[in-house]
Amino acid sequence: MNFGFLLFDDVEELDFIGPWEIVGVWSKHFEGPEQCLLISQSGEVVQCAQGLKVIPDYNFETCPTLDYLLVPGGHGTRREVENIAFLNFIQKQAANCQHVLSVCTGAFILQAAGLLADKNVTAHWGSLKNLRKLPDLTVVEQRVVHDGNIWTAAGISAGIDLALALIAAQAGEETAGKVQMAVEYYPAPVRYGKAHLSPELPAYLRQEVGVV
Amino acid sequence: MNFGFLLFDDVEELDFIGPWEIVGVWSKHFEGPEQCLLISQSGEVVQCAQGLKVIPDYNFETCPTLDYLLVPGGHGTRREVENIAFLNFIQKQAANCQHVLSVCTGAFILQAAGLLADKNVTAHWGSLKNLRKLPDLTVVEQRVVHDGNIWTAAGISAGIDLALALIAAQAGEETAGKVQMAVEYYPAPVRYGKAHLSPELPAYLRQEVGVV
Repeated sequence: MNFGFLLFDDVEELDFIGPWEIVGVWSKHFEGPEQCLLISQSGEVVQCAQGLKVIPDYNFETCPTLDYLLVPGGHGTRREVENIAFLNFIQKQAANCQHVLSVCTGAFILQAAGLLADKNVTAHWGSLKNLRKLPDLTVVEQRVVHDGNIWTAAGISAGIDLALALIAAQAGEETAGKVQMAVEYYPAPVRYGKAHLSPELPAYLRQEVGVV
Repeated sequence: MNFGFLLFDDVEELDFIGPWEIVGVWSKHFEGPEQCLLISQSGEVVQCAQGLKVIPDYNFETCPTLDYLLVPGGHGTRREVENIAFLNFIQKQAANCQHVLSVCTGAFILQAAGLLADKNVTAHWGSLKNLRKLPDLTVVEQRVVHDGNIWTAAGISAGIDLALALIAAQAGEETAGKVQMAVEYYPAPVRYGKAHLSPELPAYLRQEVGVV
Protein backbone atom coordinates (compact mmCIF):
# COMPACT_ATOMS: atom_id res chain seq x y z
CA MET A 1 0.00 0.00 0.00
CA ASN A 2 1.16 3.55 -0.83
CA PHE A 3 -0.05 6.54 1.19
CA GLY A 4 0.57 9.80 -0.68
CA PHE A 5 0.66 13.32 0.75
CA LEU A 6 0.24 16.03 -1.89
CA LEU A 7 2.35 19.18 -1.42
CA PHE A 8 2.34 22.62 -3.05
CA ASP A 9 3.85 26.02 -2.24
CA ASP A 10 2.13 27.72 0.72
CA VAL A 11 0.80 24.44 2.09
CA GLU A 12 0.20 24.74 5.85
CA GLU A 13 2.84 22.69 7.66
CA LEU A 14 0.77 20.98 10.38
CA ASP A 15 -2.01 20.14 7.88
CA PHE A 16 0.18 17.44 6.37
CA ILE A 17 2.77 16.71 9.09
CA GLY A 18 0.07 15.86 11.64
CA PRO A 19 -1.27 12.99 9.50
CA TRP A 20 2.25 12.23 8.17
CA GLU A 21 3.43 11.51 11.71
CA ILE A 22 0.38 9.41 12.61
CA VAL A 23 0.43 7.40 9.38
CA GLY A 24 4.23 7.08 9.61
CA VAL A 25 4.00 5.48 13.06
CA TRP A 26 1.18 3.22 11.84
CA SER A 27 3.34 2.22 8.86
CA LYS A 28 6.55 1.65 10.78
CA HIS A 29 5.30 -0.10 13.92
CA PHE A 30 1.75 -1.38 13.39
CA GLU A 31 1.54 -2.85 9.87
CA GLY A 32 0.13 0.25 8.19
CA PRO A 33 0.82 1.21 4.54
CA GLU A 34 4.31 0.13 3.43
CA GLN A 35 5.18 3.45 1.81
CA CYS A 36 4.46 7.04 2.87
CA LEU A 37 5.24 9.45 0.03
CA LEU A 38 5.45 13.22 -0.36
CA ILE A 39 4.50 14.38 -3.85
CA SER A 40 4.52 17.73 -5.63
CA GLN A 41 3.88 18.71 -9.24
CA SER A 42 7.53 19.39 -10.11
CA GLY A 43 9.27 17.47 -7.32
CA GLU A 44 11.28 20.63 -6.55
CA VAL A 45 11.60 22.10 -3.04
CA VAL A 46 8.24 23.11 -1.57
CA GLN A 47 8.08 26.34 0.43
CA CYS A 48 5.40 25.91 3.11
CA ALA A 49 3.18 28.64 4.55
CA GLN A 50 5.25 29.20 7.72
CA GLY A 51 8.56 28.95 5.85
CA LEU A 52 9.48 25.27 6.12
CA LYS A 53 11.32 24.03 3.03
CA VAL A 54 10.60 20.38 2.15
CA ILE A 55 12.05 18.13 -0.57
CA PRO A 56 9.29 15.90 -2.01
CA ASP A 57 9.90 12.24 -2.85
CA TYR A 58 8.09 12.23 -6.21
CA ASN A 59 6.73 14.50 -8.92
CA PHE A 60 3.52 13.90 -10.88
CA GLU A 61 5.40 11.89 -13.52
CA THR A 62 7.33 9.61 -11.16
CA CYS A 63 4.66 9.09 -8.47
CA PRO A 64 3.56 5.46 -8.18
CA THR A 65 -0.10 4.43 -7.99
CA LEU A 66 -1.52 5.46 -4.62
CA ASP A 67 -3.89 3.59 -2.33
CA TYR A 68 -4.51 6.60 -0.09
CA LEU A 69 -4.19 10.27 -1.07
CA LEU A 70 -4.24 13.15 1.42
CA VAL A 71 -4.60 16.77 0.28
CA PRO A 72 -3.67 19.35 2.93
CA GLY A 73 -4.78 22.98 3.04
CA GLY A 74 -3.16 26.35 3.32
CA HIS A 75 -3.07 29.61 1.42
CA GLY A 76 -1.70 27.84 -1.67
CA THR A 77 -5.02 26.05 -2.22
CA ARG A 78 -6.44 29.31 -3.65
CA ARG A 79 -3.96 28.92 -6.52
CA GLU A 80 -4.16 25.15 -6.91
CA VAL A 81 -7.96 24.99 -7.30
CA GLU A 82 -7.32 26.54 -10.74
CA ASN A 83 -4.30 24.39 -11.64
CA ILE A 84 -5.60 21.89 -14.22
CA ALA A 85 -2.53 19.61 -14.06
CA PHE A 86 -2.88 19.46 -10.27
CA LEU A 87 -6.57 18.57 -10.42
CA ASN A 88 -5.97 16.03 -13.19
CA PHE A 89 -3.32 14.28 -11.05
CA ILE A 90 -5.77 14.04 -8.14
CA GLN A 91 -8.58 12.72 -10.37
CA LYS A 92 -6.32 10.09 -11.94
CA GLN A 93 -4.93 8.88 -8.58
CA ALA A 94 -8.31 9.06 -6.82
CA ALA A 95 -9.73 6.59 -9.34
CA ASN A 96 -7.42 3.94 -7.85
CA CYS A 97 -7.46 5.07 -4.21
CA GLN A 98 -9.29 3.26 -1.45
CA HIS A 99 -9.62 6.55 0.42
CA VAL A 100 -9.08 10.22 -0.41
CA LEU A 101 -8.63 12.68 2.46
CA SER A 102 -8.36 16.42 2.95
CA VAL A 103 -7.36 18.61 5.87
CA CYS A 104 -8.48 22.23 6.31
CA THR A 105 -8.94 24.07 2.98
CA GLY A 106 -7.71 21.00 1.11
CA ALA A 107 -11.44 20.29 0.80
CA PHE A 108 -11.68 23.06 -1.81
CA ILE A 109 -9.16 21.18 -3.95
CA LEU A 110 -11.10 17.91 -3.67
CA GLN A 111 -14.23 19.83 -4.69
CA ALA A 112 -12.46 21.41 -7.68
CA ALA A 113 -11.35 17.90 -8.69
CA GLY A 114 -15.00 16.78 -8.65
CA LEU A 115 -14.63 14.42 -5.71
CA LEU A 116 -17.14 15.95 -3.27
CA ALA A 117 -20.39 15.55 -5.25
CA ASP A 118 -23.23 14.58 -2.89
CA LYS A 119 -20.81 14.26 0.02
CA ASN A 120 -20.90 15.42 3.64
CA VAL A 121 -17.71 17.44 4.19
CA THR A 122 -15.92 19.93 6.40
CA ALA A 123 -12.94 22.33 6.41
CA HIS A 124 -11.32 25.03 8.60
CA TRP A 125 -14.01 26.98 10.53
CA GLY A 126 -12.96 30.20 8.77
CA SER A 127 -13.74 28.67 5.35
CA LEU A 128 -17.08 26.98 6.04
CA LYS A 129 -19.04 29.95 4.66
CA ASN A 130 -17.22 29.68 1.34
CA LEU A 131 -17.48 25.89 1.34
CA ARG A 132 -21.28 26.18 1.68
CA LYS A 133 -21.40 28.28 -1.51
CA LEU A 134 -20.15 25.31 -3.56
CA PRO A 135 -22.76 23.11 -5.26
CA ASP A 136 -23.69 19.49 -4.51
CA LEU A 137 -22.10 19.08 -1.09
CA THR A 138 -23.30 19.29 2.51
CA VAL A 139 -21.19 20.98 5.18
CA VAL A 140 -21.15 19.09 8.49
CA GLU A 141 -19.58 21.00 11.40
CA GLN A 142 -17.68 18.08 12.89
CA ARG A 143 -13.95 17.80 13.48
CA VAL A 144 -13.66 14.80 11.15
CA VAL A 145 -16.26 13.85 8.52
CA HIS A 146 -16.26 10.43 6.82
CA ASP A 147 -18.55 9.84 3.84
CA GLY A 148 -17.87 6.75 1.75
CA ASN A 149 -14.26 6.90 0.58
CA ILE A 150 -13.96 10.66 1.23
CA TRP A 151 -12.60 11.90 4.57
CA THR A 152 -12.41 15.61 5.38
CA ALA A 153 -11.07 17.32 8.50
CA ALA A 154 -11.52 20.73 10.12
CA GLY A 155 -8.62 23.20 10.40
CA ILE A 156 -4.87 22.56 10.59
CA SER A 157 -4.47 20.43 13.77
CA ALA A 158 -7.58 18.35 12.95
CA GLY A 159 -5.53 16.29 10.50
CA ILE A 160 -4.16 14.38 13.50
CA ASP A 161 -7.68 13.37 14.53
CA LEU A 162 -8.50 12.54 10.90
CA ALA A 163 -5.56 10.14 10.62
CA LEU A 164 -6.39 8.35 13.87
CA ALA A 165 -10.04 8.01 12.81
CA LEU A 166 -8.91 6.52 9.48
CA ILE A 167 -6.69 3.98 11.25
CA ALA A 168 -9.52 3.04 13.62
CA ALA A 169 -11.75 2.38 10.60
CA GLN A 170 -9.12 0.53 8.56
CA ALA A 171 -7.15 -1.38 11.18
CA GLY A 172 -9.38 -1.30 14.27
CA GLU A 173 -9.60 0.77 17.44
CA GLU A 174 -6.85 -1.17 19.22
CA THR A 175 -4.34 -0.31 16.49
CA ALA A 176 -5.45 3.33 16.50
CA GLY A 177 -4.99 3.30 20.29
CA LYS A 178 -1.44 1.98 19.96
CA VAL A 179 -0.54 4.73 17.48
CA GLN A 180 -2.17 7.32 19.75
CA MET A 181 -0.08 5.99 22.65
CA ALA A 182 3.14 6.01 20.60
CA VAL A 183 2.74 9.71 19.72
CA GLU A 184 1.31 10.45 23.21
CA TYR A 185 -1.71 12.20 21.73
CA TYR A 186 -3.58 12.79 24.96
CA PRO A 187 -4.12 16.56 24.95
CA ALA A 188 -5.94 18.04 27.89
CA PRO A 189 -9.12 19.93 26.92
CA VAL A 190 -7.48 23.30 27.67
CA ARG A 191 -9.18 26.28 25.97
CA TYR A 192 -7.15 29.47 26.47
CA GLY A 193 -8.90 32.80 26.94
CA LYS A 194 -12.31 33.39 25.35
CA ALA A 195 -11.64 32.79 21.64
CA HIS A 196 -13.30 29.37 21.76
CA LEU A 197 -16.58 30.99 22.80
CA SER A 198 -16.85 32.79 19.45
CA PRO A 199 -20.16 32.04 17.68
CA GLU A 200 -18.29 31.70 14.38
CA LEU A 201 -16.65 28.49 15.56
CA PRO A 202 -18.08 25.17 14.33
CA ALA A 203 -20.94 23.25 15.90
CA TYR A 204 -18.75 20.51 17.40
CA LEU A 205 -17.05 23.13 19.58
CA ARG A 206 -20.16 25.25 20.25
CA GLN A 207 -21.88 22.17 21.59
CA GLU A 208 -18.92 21.38 23.84
CA VAL A 209 -18.81 24.86 25.37
CA GLY A 210 -22.58 25.41 25.39
CA VAL A 211 -22.68 28.30 22.87
CA VAL A 212 -25.79 27.78 20.71
CA MET B 1 13.09 38.22 18.75
CA ASN B 2 14.41 35.00 17.13
CA PHE B 3 12.82 31.62 17.84
CA GLY B 4 15.14 28.77 16.83
CA PHE B 5 14.24 25.13 16.21
CA LEU B 6 17.22 22.78 16.32
CA LEU B 7 17.23 19.93 13.78
CA PHE B 8 19.32 16.78 13.35
CA ASP B 9 19.01 13.54 11.37
CA ASP B 10 16.29 11.23 12.76
CA VAL B 11 14.48 14.07 14.50
CA GLU B 12 10.80 13.17 14.94
CA GLU B 13 8.73 15.31 12.58
CA LEU B 14 5.78 16.29 14.78
CA ASP B 15 8.11 17.07 17.71
CA PHE B 16 9.25 20.23 15.96
CA ILE B 17 6.50 20.92 13.40
CA GLY B 18 3.81 21.04 16.11
CA PRO B 19 5.51 23.96 17.93
CA TRP B 20 6.73 25.39 14.60
CA GLU B 21 3.13 25.76 13.43
CA ILE B 22 1.93 27.27 16.71
CA VAL B 23 4.84 29.70 17.04
CA GLY B 24 4.60 30.53 13.32
CA VAL B 25 0.96 31.58 13.67
CA TRP B 26 1.83 33.57 16.81
CA SER B 27 4.64 35.27 14.89
CA LYS B 28 2.68 36.01 11.73
CA HIS B 29 -0.68 37.12 13.15
CA PHE B 30 -0.36 37.95 16.86
CA GLU B 31 2.91 39.83 17.35
CA GLY B 32 5.01 36.83 18.36
CA PRO B 33 8.76 36.51 17.64
CA GLU B 34 9.72 38.19 14.36
CA GLN B 35 11.80 35.29 13.09
CA CYS B 36 11.27 31.53 13.26
CA LEU B 37 14.42 29.68 12.23
CA LEU B 38 15.34 26.07 11.50
CA ILE B 39 18.95 25.27 12.38
CA SER B 40 21.20 22.24 11.94
CA GLN B 41 24.89 21.68 12.53
CA SER B 42 25.88 21.66 8.85
CA GLY B 43 22.86 23.41 7.31
CA GLU B 44 22.55 20.49 4.88
CA VAL B 45 19.29 18.60 4.26
CA VAL B 46 17.97 16.94 7.41
CA GLN B 47 16.43 13.46 7.08
CA CYS B 48 13.70 13.13 9.71
CA ALA B 49 12.64 9.93 11.49
CA GLN B 50 9.58 9.25 9.29
CA GLY B 51 11.43 10.20 6.09
CA LEU B 52 10.65 13.92 5.68
CA LYS B 53 13.55 15.84 4.11
CA VAL B 54 13.90 19.43 5.37
CA ILE B 55 16.27 22.21 4.30
CA PRO B 56 17.37 24.20 7.39
CA ASP B 57 17.68 28.01 7.31
CA TYR B 58 21.01 28.21 9.20
CA ASN B 59 23.98 26.17 10.30
CA PHE B 60 25.85 26.58 13.61
CA GLU B 61 28.19 29.20 12.09
CA THR B 62 25.53 31.37 10.44
CA CYS B 63 22.80 31.12 13.09
CA PRO B 64 21.97 34.49 14.67
CA THR B 65 21.61 34.96 18.44
CA LEU B 66 18.41 33.27 19.62
CA ASP B 67 15.85 34.45 22.16
CA TYR B 68 14.06 31.09 22.28
CA LEU B 69 15.56 27.69 21.48
CA LEU B 70 13.51 24.50 21.06
CA VAL B 71 15.16 21.07 20.95
CA PRO B 72 12.89 18.30 19.60
CA GLY B 73 13.28 14.59 20.20
CA GLY B 74 13.50 11.46 18.12
CA HIS B 75 15.84 8.56 17.60
CA GLY B 76 18.68 10.91 16.60
CA THR B 77 18.93 12.28 20.14
CA ARG B 78 20.78 9.07 21.13
CA ARG B 79 23.60 10.19 18.81
CA GLU B 80 23.45 13.92 19.53
CA VAL B 81 23.79 13.59 23.33
CA GLU B 82 27.40 12.65 22.58
CA ASN B 83 28.01 15.31 19.91
CA ILE B 84 30.19 17.93 21.60
CA ALA B 85 29.76 20.58 18.89
CA PHE B 86 25.99 20.14 19.14
CA LEU B 87 25.98 20.51 22.93
CA ASN B 88 28.36 23.48 22.76
CA PHE B 89 26.03 25.27 20.33
CA ILE B 90 23.09 24.76 22.70
CA GLN B 91 25.08 25.95 25.73
CA LYS B 92 26.27 29.07 23.91
CA GLN B 93 22.81 29.99 22.62
CA ALA B 94 21.07 29.10 25.88
CA ALA B 95 23.19 31.67 27.71
CA ASN B 96 21.34 34.38 25.76
CA CYS B 97 17.91 32.76 25.55
CA GLN B 98 14.91 33.89 27.53
CA HIS B 99 13.53 30.36 27.34
CA VAL B 100 14.87 26.95 26.31
CA LEU B 101 12.37 24.21 25.43
CA SER B 102 12.43 20.51 24.64
CA VAL B 103 9.86 18.09 23.28
CA CYS B 104 9.92 14.33 23.88
CA THR B 105 13.46 12.93 24.14
CA GLY B 106 14.89 16.37 23.41
CA ALA B 107 15.07 16.58 27.23
CA PHE B 108 18.06 14.20 27.15
CA ILE B 109 19.92 16.70 24.97
CA LEU B 110 19.16 19.58 27.33
CA GLN B 111 20.43 17.40 30.18
CA ALA B 112 23.62 16.52 28.31
CA ALA B 113 24.13 20.25 27.72
CA GLY B 114 23.90 20.83 31.49
CA LEU B 115 20.66 22.80 31.38
CA LEU B 116 18.46 20.60 33.59
CA ALA B 117 20.35 20.81 36.91
CA ASP B 118 17.85 21.04 39.77
CA LYS B 119 14.94 21.29 37.34
CA ASN B 120 11.53 19.64 37.17
CA VAL B 121 11.30 18.03 33.73
CA THR B 122 9.46 15.53 31.55
CA ALA B 123 9.81 13.59 28.27
CA HIS B 124 8.04 10.86 26.25
CA TRP B 125 6.38 8.31 28.56
CA GLY B 126 8.58 5.55 27.16
CA SER B 127 11.74 7.41 28.23
CA LEU B 128 10.80 8.50 31.75
CA LYS B 129 12.56 5.52 33.30
CA ASN B 130 15.84 6.49 31.62
CA LEU B 131 15.29 10.17 32.41
CA ARG B 132 14.95 9.29 36.12
CA LYS B 133 18.41 7.68 36.02
CA LEU B 134 20.03 11.04 35.27
CA PRO B 135 21.38 13.07 38.20
CA ASP B 136 20.14 16.38 39.59
CA LEU B 137 16.71 16.53 38.00
CA THR B 138 13.17 15.65 39.06
CA VAL B 139 10.78 13.91 36.67
CA VAL B 140 7.25 15.31 36.80
CA GLU B 141 4.64 13.27 34.91
CA GLN B 142 2.76 16.18 33.40
CA ARG B 143 2.16 16.90 29.71
CA VAL B 144 4.05 20.21 29.93
CA VAL B 145 6.51 21.14 32.68
CA HIS B 146 7.69 24.72 33.21
CA ASP B 147 10.54 25.39 35.62
CA GLY B 148 12.20 28.79 35.43
CA ASN B 149 13.38 29.33 31.86
CA ILE B 150 13.27 25.60 31.03
CA TRP B 151 10.16 24.12 29.43
CA THR B 152 9.90 20.38 28.71
CA ALA B 153 7.05 18.48 27.06
CA ALA B 154 5.92 14.86 26.99
CA GLY B 155 6.02 12.81 23.78
CA ILE B 156 5.74 13.91 20.13
CA SER B 157 2.31 15.62 19.97
CA ALA B 158 2.81 17.34 23.36
CA GLY B 159 4.96 19.99 21.67
CA ILE B 160 1.72 21.63 20.49
CA ASP B 161 0.54 21.99 24.08
CA LEU B 162 4.00 23.19 25.12
CA ALA B 163 3.97 26.00 22.55
CA LEU B 164 0.48 27.16 23.53
CA ALA B 165 1.47 27.15 27.23
CA LEU B 166 4.55 29.23 26.42
CA ILE B 167 2.47 31.78 24.51
CA ALA B 168 -0.03 31.98 27.38
CA ALA B 169 2.85 32.72 29.77
CA GLN B 170 4.63 35.18 27.47
CA ALA B 171 1.78 36.98 25.73
CA GLY B 172 -1.29 36.15 27.82
CA GLU B 173 -4.13 33.66 27.67
CA GLU B 174 -6.15 35.70 25.17
CA THR B 175 -3.32 35.59 22.64
CA ALA B 176 -2.83 31.86 23.24
CA GLY B 177 -6.58 31.44 22.70
CA LYS B 178 -6.43 33.26 19.36
CA VAL B 179 -3.56 31.04 18.17
CA GLN B 180 -5.46 27.96 19.36
CA MET B 181 -8.51 29.15 17.40
CA ALA B 182 -6.44 29.87 14.26
CA VAL B 183 -5.06 26.32 14.17
CA GLU B 184 -8.41 24.91 15.38
CA TYR B 185 -6.72 22.96 18.17
CA TYR B 186 -9.85 21.67 19.86
CA PRO B 187 -9.29 17.91 19.88
CA ALA B 188 -12.02 15.78 21.39
CA PRO B 189 -10.82 13.62 24.31
CA VAL B 190 -11.08 10.44 22.20
CA ARG B 191 -8.97 7.52 23.49
CA TYR B 192 -9.01 4.63 21.04
CA GLY B 193 -9.02 1.06 22.29
CA LYS B 194 -7.38 0.21 25.61
CA ALA B 195 -3.78 1.42 25.14
CA HIS B 196 -4.39 4.52 27.27
CA LEU B 197 -5.22 2.32 30.26
CA SER B 198 -1.66 0.97 30.36
CA PRO B 199 -0.03 1.49 33.79
CA GLU B 200 3.21 2.54 32.07
CA LEU B 201 1.59 5.76 30.86
CA PRO B 202 2.34 8.99 32.77
CA ALA B 203 0.49 10.25 35.82
CA TYR B 204 -1.35 13.04 33.98
CA LEU B 205 -3.13 10.40 31.89
CA ARG B 206 -3.51 7.78 34.65
CA GLN B 207 -5.30 10.38 36.76
CA GLU B 208 -7.61 11.25 33.86
CA VAL B 209 -8.64 7.67 33.24
CA GLY B 210 -8.60 6.60 36.89
CA VAL B 211 -5.69 4.09 36.67
CA VAL B 212 -3.68 4.47 39.85
